[in-house]
Amino acid sequence: MVERRKPIPINEAVERVMKFSFPGTVETVLLEECDDRYLADDLLADHDVPPFDRSPYDGFAIRAVDSVEASRENPVELEVVEEIGAGTVAKKRLQTGQATRIMTGAALPEGANAIVMLELVQERTEGSKKIIVIKRPFKQGDSVSFKGEDTEKGTALVSKGTRITPGVKALLATFGYNKVPVHKKPVVGIYATGTELLDIEEELSPGKIRNSNSYMIQSQIKKAGGEPILFGKLEDDFEVCFQSIKNAIEKVDFLITTGGVSVGDFDYLPAIYEKLGAEVLFNKVAMRPGSVTTVAQLDGKLLFGLSGNPSACFVGCELFVRPILKSFMGSIRMHLQKEQAVLQAEFPKPNPFTRLVRSKATMSDGRLSVKPTGLDKSGVVTSLAGANALMMLPGGTRGFQQGDNVHVLLLDEEGSPDTWE
Amino acid sequence: MVERRKPIPINEAVERVMKFSFPGTVETVLLEECDDRYLADDLLADHDVPPFDRSPYDGFAIRAVDSVEASRENPVELEVVEEIGAGTVAKKRLQTGQATRIMTGAALPEGANAIVMLELVQERTEGSKKIIVIKRPFKQGDSVSFKGEDTEKGTALVSKGTRITPGVKALLATFGYNKVPVHKKPVVGIYATGTELLDIEEELSPGKIRNSNSYMIQSQIKKAGGEPILFGKLEDDFEVCFQSIKNAIEKVDFLITTGGVSVGDFDYLPAIYEKLGAEVLFNKVAMRPGSVTTVAQLDGKLLFGLSGNPSACFVGCELFVRPILKSFMGSIRMHLQKEQAVLQAEFPKPNPFTRLVRSKATMSDGRLSVKPTGLDKSGVVTSLAGANALMMLPGGTRGFQQGDNVHVLLLDEEGSPDTWE
Repeated sequence: MVERRKPIPINEAVERVMKFSFPGTVETVLLEECDDRYLADDLLADHDVPPFDRSPYDGFAIRAVDSVEASRENPVELEVVEEIGAGTVAKKRLQTGQATRIMTGAALPEGANAIVMLELVQERTEGSKKIIVIKRPFKQGDSVSFKGEDTEKGTALVSKGTRITPGVKALLATFGYNKVPVHKKPVVGIYATGTELLDIEEELSPGKIRNSNSYMIQSQIKKAGGEPILFGKLEDDFEVCFQSIKNAIEKVDFLITTGGVSVGDFDYLPAIYEKLGAEVLFNKVAMRPGSVTTVAQLDGKLLFGLSGNPSACFVGCELFVRPILKSFMGSIRMHLQKEQAVLQAEFPKPNPFTRLVRSKATMSDGRLSVKPTGLDKSGVVTSLAGANALMMLPGGTRGFQQGDNVHVLLLDEEGSPDTWE
Repeated sequence: MVERRKPIPINEAVERVMKFSFPGTVETVLLEECDDRYLADDLLADHDVPPFDRSPYDGFAIRAVDSVEASRENPVELEVVEEIGAGTVAKKRLQTGQATRIMTGAALPEGANAIVMLELVQERTEGSKKIIVIKRPFKQGDSVSFKGEDTEKGTALVSKGTRITPGVKALLATFGYNKVPVHKKPVVGIYATGTELLDIEEELSPGKIRNSNSYMIQSQIKKAGGEPILFGKLEDDFEVCFQSIKNAIEKVDFLITTGGVSVGDFDYLPAIYEKLGAEVLFNKVAMRPGSVTTVAQLDGKLLFGLSGNPSACFVGCELFVRPILKSFMGSIRMHLQKEQAVLQAEFPKPNPFTRLVRSKATMSDGRLSVKPTGLDKSGVVTSLAGANALMMLPGGTRGFQQGDNVHVLLLDEEGSPDTWE
């Protein structure tokens, strides 16, 4: 007896999952360890930038008033009374007729209000006295980088929800964040089900295959920023599966199982969800592969029942697991980024379901093009290895030709706040 | 006295660095921990795929010869003698008039040579006997996935030098790689020089700024796959800098310093390289920012003298450090990926040097466009935080207009085997 399931569109399935999204608790991590996390608060400037009036060049700090009369015919001489590097502070207040040698980034001495670039003066010495000669007038403020002119203290520079890249980290350091507020990483448990599964180090034996899905998902979870726990594999035995899954739920923020969601005689997941008292959000999605992807919730905790087929498992994880993990981490770019690309292959046969084809998207002359990675027989095996995109071919009555504009979901991009139709 | 340095083109600078590239020693890591490393060997199929003749569907395994006479008018009845799930092996060899109930992925029983899909039979029982009724003939091999038809044992599926993505990891698991050969991660030491530098947790004081470069580079190194060591900061004191740098070189595969490479009075790096006996590969590059970027080699070990200016430091790290680290890790895609994009801003002023402008590249309708991230005053501070690309504007006598095609180096992409002009 084959159970009848009602397929729902991909979009609706994603929405049903995302209703259970909430950000993880906020924790602080050391600046050294915050890479690729998401800011849980706006990044604020804790000081003015520049933090003091400073010199943008190597040169001399002067009192503008001393240069008013200066010209080629009537050069003005100033005595250099001090030399200051970046990080040191002038000890002397400039008096009439004096200048200070100043390095890039150093603070102006008291009394100074203009900077003269090194190239614009002549230097000479008179005994132990250092003299500079100026041949044009300078105005108050000339070449000075004024305190706060770039950014005022308290300004929000980067919004919460932004991923911490090297550039963001530079800002965090600049503004004194030796500890950084971020959201907790989601802990994601992974169980593979199926009597046919072997551990990786086991020799192949008749009827058996190695458990590749767990490791693939582990990698997908890490890439999304989560903390995977490999719980191992389970035989097709209802009681064993039920107890193991029940126990695992306690230890994780999200639980993923692979296999057992179809309508075969050994597909126990539907019955396990029922016995757990979990609410099934959907058990059929109008897509290929992965149509049997099932998601349930138990007290608000999501249980993802992915297909045991590697490609379907991969797609289910990217489409449904990724966005909820990203949102748990506080990202504002939860979903795979959808772009338009020029198709470099033929799909003559129409398909009633939306297809998600493992593909390679490449740029050429500033335009994105895409072709499937599984074009030949061995592509069945390697198509996931070469894919950086999922081509999204809508279901319907027509095929697709070379040169058509199609949509692709990019697997390696930061992501998008919006879902896709 | 200002030292005269001869600028060389970016391309030539990269080439001079890459002459010292060599892959790190090979080590094996656990499958669980190999993410984002690069395969040090081709990934080989350790078995045929499929590993045995198997059923791609839920259905029944039969002997084709028993169905030869079957038709709508003359249905053939077969007795179901066994039921096998994936992972179990049939105990019974099929005899004349028999069939085996078989699940997706299970191995064909001996004697069987065709699969009949579940939907194509009628089932009934006679007492304890299970019977299926077939109304058409099947040929030998119908719906059988034959051993080795996708991939033969020994086939190289993924080439060495490929990054380990979730899809590659799935293949590694499938083919029994519980340990994975990869190249050692490069250990990269980072020293910031400059008396003006404060630690992150220190309060600002006159003339001082916080050491943001070390943390930014730490993040860039991690992103490139290396293992950064933060050695801290050094005052502008020749002897202290010399000894610290000399000691640090022993502990790392590459050493980066920031600051001290210009021609100011406190820029000690050139003299330190000289005292170390290091050969300077270049100390001036025809680019903005980062023209003072200096690279030296000591017994084949590279010493990167990056500018103390954060943007110049960032650019120097991406252009010169990144590719050598990638090559050390065994990647075949060492350099930043260069693409064409439509300029969304004006650069009316020509510049004699090639400019590398911190920019945001975005896709729209399948086309790449780009604009600088530092368009306003506070952009000076935040331009690195928002950048995912470096716009590469060649030096010369003309400016650039909105709508021009320009080149961009994409910071978040996997990279390219080729360098750029």
